[in-house]
Amino acid sequence: MTYSVIGQSLPRVDGEEKITGRARFTGDHELRGLLHARLVLSPHAHARIRRLPTATARAVPGVVAVFAADDLPFGDEVPNVRGRCLLARGEVRFVGDPVAVVVAESEAAAADGAERLAAAVEFDPLPALVDAAAAADPDAPLVQPGLAGKSSEASLHAAVKVDDDPQDQKPSNVSGRVRFVRGDIERGLRESDLVIDRTFRTSIVHQAYIEPHATVADYDAAAKRLTVWTATQALFYSREHVSQVLGLPESSVRIVPMPVGGGFGAKILLLEPLAGALAMVLRRPVRLVLTRSDEFRTATPAPQSTFEVRLGAKHDGTLVALRARLLFDAGALPGAPLNIAALMLGGMYQVPHLDVQGREVLTHKAPVGAYRAPGAPQAAFALESVIDELARGLGRDPIEFRLQNASRGGDPMPSGETWPRIGLRESLAALQEDPLWRNRGRDGRGIGVAAGGWFGGIEPASACVRLNTDGSMHVVVGSVDISGTATGLAQVAAETLGVPLSRVRMIAADSDNAPAAGMSGGSKIMYTVGSAVAKAAQDARHQILALAARRLEAAEGDLEIVDGTVRVRGVPARTVALAEVAKLQSGFGASYPPVFGVASEAIVERAPAFGAHAARVRVDADSGRVRIIEYAVAQDVGRAINPAAIFGQIHGGVAQGIGWALLERMSYDEHGSLVTGSFLDYALPRATDVPPIRTSLVEVPSERGPFGAKGVGEPPVVPVAAAIANAIADASGARVETLPIVPESVVQALARAKRA
Amino acid sequence: MTYSVIGQSLPRVDGEEKITGRARFTGDHELRGLLHARLVLSPHAHARIRRLPTATARAVPGVVAVFAADDLPFGDEVPNVRGRCLLARGEVRFVGDPVAVVVAESEAAAADGAERLAAAVEFDPLPALVDAAAAADPDAPLVQPGLAGKSSEASLHAAVKVDDDPQDQKPSNVSGRVRFVRGDIERGLRESDLVIDRTFRTSIVHQAYIEPHATVADYDAAAKRLTVWTATQALFYSREHVSQVLGLPESSVRIVPMPVGGGFGAKILLLEPLAGALAMVLRRPVRLVLTRSDEFRTATPAPQSTFEVRLGAKHDGTLVALRARLLFDAGALPGAPLNIAALMLGGMYQVPHLDVQGREVLTHKAPVGAYRAPGAPQAAFALESVIDELARGLGRDPIEFRLQNASRGGDPMPSGETWPRIGLRESLAALQEDPLWRNRGRDGRGIGVAAGGWFGGIEPASACVRLNTDGSMHVVVGSVDISGTATGLAQVAAETLGVPLSRVRMIAADSDNAPAAGMSGGSKIMYTVGSAVAKAAQDARHQILALAARRLEAAEGDLEIVDGTVRVRGVPARTVALAEVAKLQSGFGASYPPVFGVASEAIVERAPAFGAHAARVRVDADSGRVRIIEYAVAQDVGRAINPAAIFGQIHGGVAQGIGWALLERMSYDEHGSLVTGSFLDYALPRATDVPPIRTSLVEVPSERGPFGAKGVGEPPVVPVAAAIANAIADASGARVETLPIVPESVVQALARAKRA
Repeated sequence: MTYSVIGQSLPRVDGEEKITGRARFTGDHELRGLLHARLVLSPHAHARIRRLPTATARAVPGVVAVFAADDLPFGDEVPNVRGRCLLARGEVRFVGDPVAVVVAESEAAAADGAERLAAAVEFDPLPALVDAAAAADPDAPLVQPGLAGKSSEASLHAAVKVDDDPQDQKPSNVSGRVRFVRGDIERGLRESDLVIDRTFRTSIVHQAYIEPHATVADYDAAAKRLTVWTATQALFYSREHVSQVLGLPESSVRIVPMPVGGGFGAKILLLEPLAGALAMVLRRPVRLVLTRSDEFRTATPAPQSTFEVRLGAKHDGTLVALRARLLFDAGALPGAPLNIAALMLGGMYQVPHLDVQGREVLTHKAPVGAYRAPGAPQAAFALESVIDELARGLGRDPIEFRLQNASRGGDPMPSGETWPRIGLRESLAALQEDPLWRNRGRDGRGIGVAAGGWFGGIEPASACVRLNTDGSMHVVVGSVDISGTATGLAQVAAETLGVPLSRVRMIAADSDNAPAAGMSGGSKIMYTVGSAVAKAAQDARHQILALAARRLEAAEGDLEIVDGTVRVRGVPARTVALAEVAKLQSGFGASYPPVFGVASEAIVERAPAFGAHAARVRVDADSGRVRIIEYAVAQDVGRAINPAAIFGQIHGGVAQGIGWALLERMSYDEHGSLVTGSFLDYALPRATDVPPIRTSLVEVPSERGPFGAKGVGEPPVVPVAAAIANAIADASGARVETLPIVPESVVQALARAKRA
Repeated sequence: MTYSVIGQSLPRVDGEEKITGRARFTGDHELRGLLHARLVLSPHAHARIRRLPTATARAVPGVVAVFAADDLPFGDEVPNVRGRCLLARGEVRFVGDPVAVVVAESEAAAADGAERLAAAVEFDPLPALVDAAAAADPDAPLVQPGLAGKSSEASLHAAVKVDDDPQDQKPSNVSGRVRFVRGDIERGLRESDLVIDRTFRTSIVHQAYIEPHATVADYDAAAKRLTVWTATQALFYSREHVSQVLGLPESSVRIVPMPVGGGFGAKILLLEPLAGALAMVLRRPVRLVLTRSDEFRTATPAPQSTFEVRLGAKHDGTLVALRARLLFDAGALPGAPLNIAALMLGGMYQVPHLDVQGREVLTHKAPVGAYRAPGAPQAAFALESVIDELARGLGRDPIEFRLQNASRGGDPMPSGETWPRIGLRESLAALQEDPLWRNRGRDGRGIGVAAGGWFGGIEPASACVRLNTDGSMHVVVGSVDISGTATGLAQVAAETLGVPLSRVRMIAADSDNAPAAGMSGGSKIMYTVGSAVAKAAQDARHQILALAARRLEAAEGDLEIVDGTVRVRGVPARTVALAEVAKLQSGFGASYPPVFGVASEAIVERAPAFGAHAARVRVDADSGRVRIIEYAVAQDVGRAINPAAIFGQIHGGVAQGIGWALLERMSYDEHGSLVTGSFLDYALPRATDVPPIRTSLVEVPSERGPFGAKGVGEPPVVPVAAAIANAIADASGARVETLPIVPESVVQALARAKRA
């Protein structure tokens, strides 16, 4: 099958307006009478609010109103999701917990008011639980006494079932548990010829989007309608929670999705309920934008994690036993991706004896959120480091060793479900062909490999395809484009319809008028919405052919659409333009129903996507500095709809993975104060830190995605840290078990290696 | 069948925000960097533009740009529809023809610039053809030499076929012709026992909406997308013409419908192309709002008409022959409702011998447009006046005489098509029961009756019904609400779904994301879009029941939706709330397709709707003043979805009909200058001019409308002038044949009556 639009590398439809700075973001959204809001954040990790002298801020010229928690007649008694929190009530639980909001006629006045109020608030500090292990102690005081400890948005990122193991009933800070058991772990470890036992740690990492969180809300009291303009990844999810928190029916809340200036999982729900509450109380539109400092303190970074892993194998390279203990620090509210991490850790390779246990624990730090493949980079770092050690210990080629044990379709996952068709082995095999790997002998050592991937989200979706009077087409969806999906969806529609891409206009509608779609998270838009678009386009195509058949006096089955014209197969002269077909179904007195292709479906089969990465590094033994020289990725994408967009996703994922691997860490001191609260302290990869990246796209088609496509956004970040750690070990003998791998760690590991 | 929501009188969903002044109209729409445009209009009916010193306006501080026709690289060579005209090129053809547009940073600067330029433009005046009869002379100079003379938007208002009779080939100002012939007219007139022969004239009448035409346009050059916010009645029609005039694909034009502050047919397409052109050239958003003076000069009023009618009947009251010659003055561009007028004139009653001929002629006056039931008030005034005279001459009861001859379903129309089921006779019969008629003996004379109606438009439409997570519903349509249809459509959806009205939110989407719908003209939204909504709601209902059947472990056929809850028929305890059903189809990993009810259909059967009116008047014989004492309407509405909204339509229609009858007239002097260019000179009915109106709703259900509903908006204006004229004749013996019936005409007619 050859395609005319699918597989073409195309620039993003929104590229030009973003590159030229003409795109309008939420922070640019003006409304008549717009007010500006600024948060006052807690400087304490844990404290009682003693005195909140809002009059201090109200005295600032231009300040219109100042609100504390009790001034807003909305909200949950005890919110269990960060996005549902409005303002802290009585007690603050992390540095950055919002205690008040100042609303003013100008941004400057709001900032001035917030600064003065921040200086005047009085707290009674309380002891803070900063360390996750200490917080997990059954006798530790409770971070959230009112909370049972349920899962939240991060767990939404993969639709996986887990066995839950509610061990003890005593309330504790352990807000989530998971356990997967297979075979007899003790026997498995005993029967192993070589067991590697390591403990891995990852740091809190910020999503570091360029655009801060920004929301504009406006309430029409006459129509009883709240409109929220926001850079959300999740139109309908956001509407659901805004309406619940504010006590409005969903039909009274309209969420207008704005361009997302970087989301990566963090732009799901944060300021929308508060902005909505302010607009409802003040009856004027309100804009709430976080400062960069606010972003570090009050937004939702990826969690710190600890993985204790024991992995055993036979001399012949067969894996025998995996024992792991996971601990995720969720911060002050539940939401760490425990299940995903445990499933990925225990599922990528086939091990007959398995015991994976995980806990999520609450501490007095900022509640965590989703970040690109939540839980998977942490799990892959641990698993792929220990796999590498095992291969090294057994004297095996690291790719061959992985191929020997890698899961394939039909194999069991730790949960007992079986893997669908996956391309893990195909990606590893493709990586073997990459020059970086093929030529590994020539350039000496310093090469590391790692694999990793993502389960792939699923969520029901609808889509509509409409024929315009001039023969152009509108494709209407409810999904937000955070990664170029609009371009890919247009390609799917154009290919299916048989029209040039220029005739297809993608419309990402708002929550009032959009067909249903899941949030843009879980690498599922192309897979689920793309499938709905393909089916809606097929539906529209049938309707078009039925109309054209009347015009051409031909059987519908003999017709095809080529380049925007309907023609009788084999009779090139008998054609009718789409614009002519369109005239039959539009205008006063027209006799045929409007062409309105529709699909509404729920895919229940996941399409996990894996990649294999190789990094070549140089390690300066004296300074511990690591330089990445070359990088290669082979990733299964099912079907490459828009290769250029996928390359972009892979490059971005690798760049962010380099941040995980070498640079990024949000540090808290022993009192729970954030030490790295700006981009001066928090190190992101710069262009010079990112090496040339060579990419091979592997196509193991999914069963249900359009043209076999799978989600591609999350997998590329997953194996990076492990690949780099393995390359460092290969280059220098230094095995570093904590992310980020800063020069100091390398020097220490080298010293340990020498001693050993 | 009893209904729970259908038939309830409900306030309009948009009522509160309009009454409280909080609705935002196009003139309120603010954008960053908004520019303001003002037109410079021709003061001459016909002239060559000699000098257009745009620098005069450009010199005004704040003026950004001034455009003449040649400065805008858009537009038709010879536009044949007023809405497609940008600026006059070389020659002006009516007082009010736009010659230039001034764009400025403020409205005041734009007005100042336009005023100075208007004073500076130099014209070479040319002879103007002001009188239609003179213009129709085959030797008259041509008003539009470049134009073939095709039909335009007004003819869209009823989807009727006509025989066209292109008599002579010589170019003339006759831009449209129609002729219907049946039987042998000469024989019919010979065989008639009584023939009435009269000539009726109606005046140019302005739609006199409160909100002037207003459009805001913004062009995103990066995305190559034009957005137009406008108070249009016709989303997709407007998009089609804007895109054609500006050379953009339809997929690059987004029309956002704004609240319409009175449309009545005039808010279809006028400023949108010009505003779009300005935004494209200037790369800044532009707002163009007409002044009231502009409205009178450059917008599109209802046409002047002349009807020469000879109607003959037998002694027994049987109509035998109808001969009519119609002349419509279209102004400077074609678009008069000739066909509709001819069909209505020749179709309401059954006449074996028929010869109806009509012509549309161009003159140097403002091009006409649609106004509520275009052509029908003019035709009804002529026909129902002459019917009344005939009844009087034969000594027959005027209602009985009409009942004897009134068309019914299956009877032929002048075009040869047959009438579908209509309620003309039922309305006349209902009027007989009205106290005004029943008690006519008691209060003496002064009572007139008249019937009239509307063919009912048809146009394909789609609709969507979505289930929200909380169990509320969204109904998405592409039709503009100019008459309360949103409330009625919500009632149709709620009734069909089995949910309370409060759970249904109507969304009138924009041209990007809306399902297709015809323009809000032709009294067809409830009939066509309402039918699509009912079918989409049925579709959604089936999907809901299928999901609920799984939850309730019951057969789908045993389920019903009552008051927003699904329950097993006869087992009140087995229920599931819609919100619970909704949860099965939304959220990460949900297993069922989103409930997405859709319908797309083209109704090809029209549903004509008729009414019968009675007026009681007092005539002051000395002054000629007419006072309407009492008014009664019996109208066939098919099915009254929202009686309150229908009463509103009827009251409004009667009020506008009183304007036609007694007050409204746009007068031009012999040079083609408008004499009545403001509300000081143009008399609208005031509250004291409108008597109490008693309304009976007759329900002769349509075959295809939702619950049998028909269009109700246009019929009530149709018979009013005739009913009042007949009442004047009944009261005083004065038969006035020219609208409006001003006191002077009454005095003259009384004098004629005395002489006779």
